Amino acid sequence: MRHGLVTPEQLALITDLYELTMAAGYFSQGTADRTATFDLSIRSLPPQRGYLVAAGLEQALAYLRDLRFTAEVLQQLEGTGHFRTDFLDYLASFRFSGSVDAIAEGTVVFPPTPLVTVTAPIIEAQLVETYLLTMITFQTMIATKAARVVGASSGRQVVDFSPRRDHGPQAGLLAARAAFIGGCIGTSNVLAGQRFEIPTYGTMAHSFIMFYPDEEEAFLAFADSYPGDPTLLIDTYDTLDGARVAVRVARELEKVGRKLAAVRLDSGDLVTLSREVRAILDEAGLQATKIFASGGLDEFKIHDMLLAGAEVDGFGVGTELGTSGDAPSLDSTYKLVACVDGSGDEIPVIKLSTGKITLPGRKQVWRQRNGGSFMRDIIGMADEQLEGEPLIEPVMRDGVPLHQAPALLDVQRRAAEQLAATPESTRALEKPAPYEVEISAQLHQLVESLRRR
Amino acid sequence: MRHGLVTPEQLALITDLYELTMAAGYFSQGTADRTATFDLSIRSLPPQRGYLVAAGLEQALAYLRDLRFTAEVLQQLEGTGHFRTDFLDYLASFRFSGSVDAIAEGTVVFPPTPLVTVTAPIIEAQLVETYLLTMITFQTMIATKAARVVGASSGRQVVDFSPRRDHGPQAGLLAARAAFIGGCIGTSNVLAGQRFEIPTYGTMAHSFIMFYPDEEEAFLAFADSYPGDPTLLIDTYDTLDGARVAVRVARELEKVGRKLAAVRLDSGDLVTLSREVRAILDEAGLQATKIFASGGLDEFKIHDMLLAGAEVDGFGVGTELGTSGDAPSLDSTYKLVACVDGSGDEIPVIKLSTGKITLPGRKQVWRQRNGGSFMRDIIGMADEQLEGEPLIEPVMRDGVPLHQAPALLDVQRRAAEQLAATPESTRALEKPAPYEVEISAQLHQLVESLRRR
Repeated sequence: MRHGLVTPEQLALITDLYELTMAAGYFSQGTADRTATFDLSIRSLPPQRGYLVAAGLEQALAYLRDLRFTAEVLQQLEGTGHFRTDFLDYLASFRFSGSVDAIAEGTVVFPPTPLVTVTAPIIEAQLVETYLLTMITFQTMIATKAARVVGASSGRQVVDFSPRRDHGPQAGLLAARAAFIGGCIGTSNVLAGQRFEIPTYGTMAHSFIMFYPDEEEAFLAFADSYPGDPTLLIDTYDTLDGARVAVRVARELEKVGRKLAAVRLDSGDLVTLSREVRAILDEAGLQATKIFASGGLDEFKIHDMLLAGAEVDGFGVGTELGTSGDAPSLDSTYKLVACVDGSGDEIPVIKLSTGKITLPGRKQVWRQRNGGSFMRDIIGMADEQLEGEPLIEPVMRDGVPLHQAPALLDVQRRAAEQLAATPESTRALEKPAPYEVEISAQLHQLVESLRRR
Repeated sequence: MRHGLVTPEQLALITDLYELTMAAGYFSQGTADRTATFDLSIRSLPPQRGYLVAAGLEQALAYLRDLRFTAEVLQQLEGTGHFRTDFLDYLASFRFSGSVDAIAEGTVVFPPTPLVTVTAPIIEAQLVETYLLTMITFQTMIATKAARVVGASSGRQVVDFSPRRDHGPQAGLLAARAAFIGGCIGTSNVLAGQRFEIPTYGTMAHSFIMFYPDEEEAFLAFADSYPGDPTLLIDTYDTLDGARVAVRVARELEKVGRKLAAVRLDSGDLVTLSREVRAILDEAGLQATKIFASGGLDEFKIHDMLLAGAEVDGFGVGTELGTSGDAPSLDSTYKLVACVDGSGDEIPVIKLSTGKITLPGRKQVWRQRNGGSFMRDIIGMADEQLEGEPLIEPVMRDGVPLHQAPALLDVQRRAAEQLAATPESTRALEKPAPYEVEISAQLHQLVESLRRR
């Protein structure tokens, strides 16, 4: 019986086979040491998205810092028969020695802006492609989805409830992190709470209620064992009856100086039920008891519920948040944009296959504002001096991270500030207005000259 | 800089917080030891799906077998302030001691059939909910998607190319396993190759071609370093030119007794290009050189391509396969269906919240055939004797797996046989015919009697 976990020793195996066969190619050709630059970018926005929230850089840099080929991994690679001994010997002493420039996590970005640029001997820069792509793509996708859900919730609290529906246990861990960056106040994921210091939330499942002879006994049992002020799930049998039972339990709690923090609705017509439950709670003087809603929610349903007058103070969002259900992938790429040729000169590179043109050379992105609000991004050459705030910063040199990773709370704060500065029309849930991304004259000229060649 | 990996020591933290708060509740109420039975099932089919391919059981059982709360984990839980010392002491000696009955991996299943049934002291059965759900749900979803893609490919080979777009590194590992069960011949995922003995495939990226002064030099460099017969990616600049260059490289290979195994197309109009490339190869006498296609494929595109006369021998399918792009989640549940009450009797349990009725009691599923073909499933009580093949089997007793996990190749074979026996109309890519799933008279009666109560 084999687990499906990935241990830190196996970082080096988390790759497409072709990264290794290409690396072997560079190695045997004696071209492995030539410096190359790759851009990781999202080619285009998925449907209904006007922006993306960059995320995943901390894990990407940790990977580059720690990537080694252990004796065990080398043995496994030898066993495949794909590789020669001298190449495996090279891998034994491998460490990533290159430079990384990137846009900070929590930054609102617009395709086709590069998010991460890797400059290293080509054998190194190539080997790290798969891991960087999966890490940055997934977290950026989820941070973006979370920002949409949180935006639709208009200031109400949103908690990540996705672990059971995420694409396996690690997807759950990463989703919780990215969702927090996108504005969720916490997660139900205990491991994410421990690893990333994200506040954890949780109450009870229907099974807990059903295990006891009746709802009241179940609520009292839970309240008795739970150290804080409890939240009670009231929809197992009949939601309005459940609300009345919760009121009785609140009375019991009051006797010992405790409070009913909230009730949770997980099924049915959440608009009507939340209003009726609110009335029951208010009539009982429980104005301070909050109503929490969950059950198949996403940004569209939350938006509609609030428009229809739902009386909900917070949302638990699972499946759709943790899988980015309406757009479960991003069109991310990791493309060679410059390399040193045989004579030692760095030359910009372009790919021209049908419909998939890349932007050549080392680049920078400048963001221009109109007052406080983002107005336009300009993608230009790294050595240009254009107006606006440059977004791409040095984050790793000689394989060593230049800074500590920022606290996740600071990344969340950055995302909130960035979202507030993003035009409202670009943040629309449906048919968002396109944001202007220009290519500088110099970059445009380079594309044209390479294309003619 | 923190990694986003999940180590085996952290299995116990991969859970929703509420599993632990409920467990603490059972513990402090003295009800923790009462036996309970939970069903893990998929409530309904996602759009366009007529069936599901069960997968993920091996990892679920490995988890149940190995789940422990280490001193480090207990310290972390203590730090949350959610739990009392006596409960943490209980967790220190925790091991799963229950029984599991399940449908074998690779079986074609139809909702709302239970896939996994857990019977254990309720505190244990409850604690394992989140992990079992994420593991079974994700792998079942991907095995199903793979079966659709492989079905659409009409006997051609399909390889999982999804690692870069999967929901993080572990999702990639699990996706490769599930895709193999669903009929893929292999994966580009090196770790999956090592862990699950899945054949790995890989060639080169566009960056490799672009790194060299011209395509021919790149192809020769790759062929020189690659020990086997190479596959060449021919669409970096112009696909038809690329095919002609590949022919020249094939001539060089022939001189030293080697062959050009295949060419790969990754962009453009794959129908037209594949036919034109086929003609170029055939005219050069390279009838044995295969054409491999990739680039944003899914079952619908493959079906249409083949219908339009594409000359393709194999497909690399990434994003849509590894994320189940058109249906990136399954409506899975883990529901209490029976428990021992205060007097020691086992009683069936039902949940009645709006629109979400569960099937109570311990159950079995019988599959009836018409000739070789699946005709009908009947869900009944475990102690009934109905006609057909019972699908739910004992797989764990007293926390110990009853069997070795089957070889993955045998699971793949089982899935292929099961798919062949599934009515063609139910396997349709679009608007599949519903398969008949009946509830036995006895189970129906139980539902009604519990509902009246």
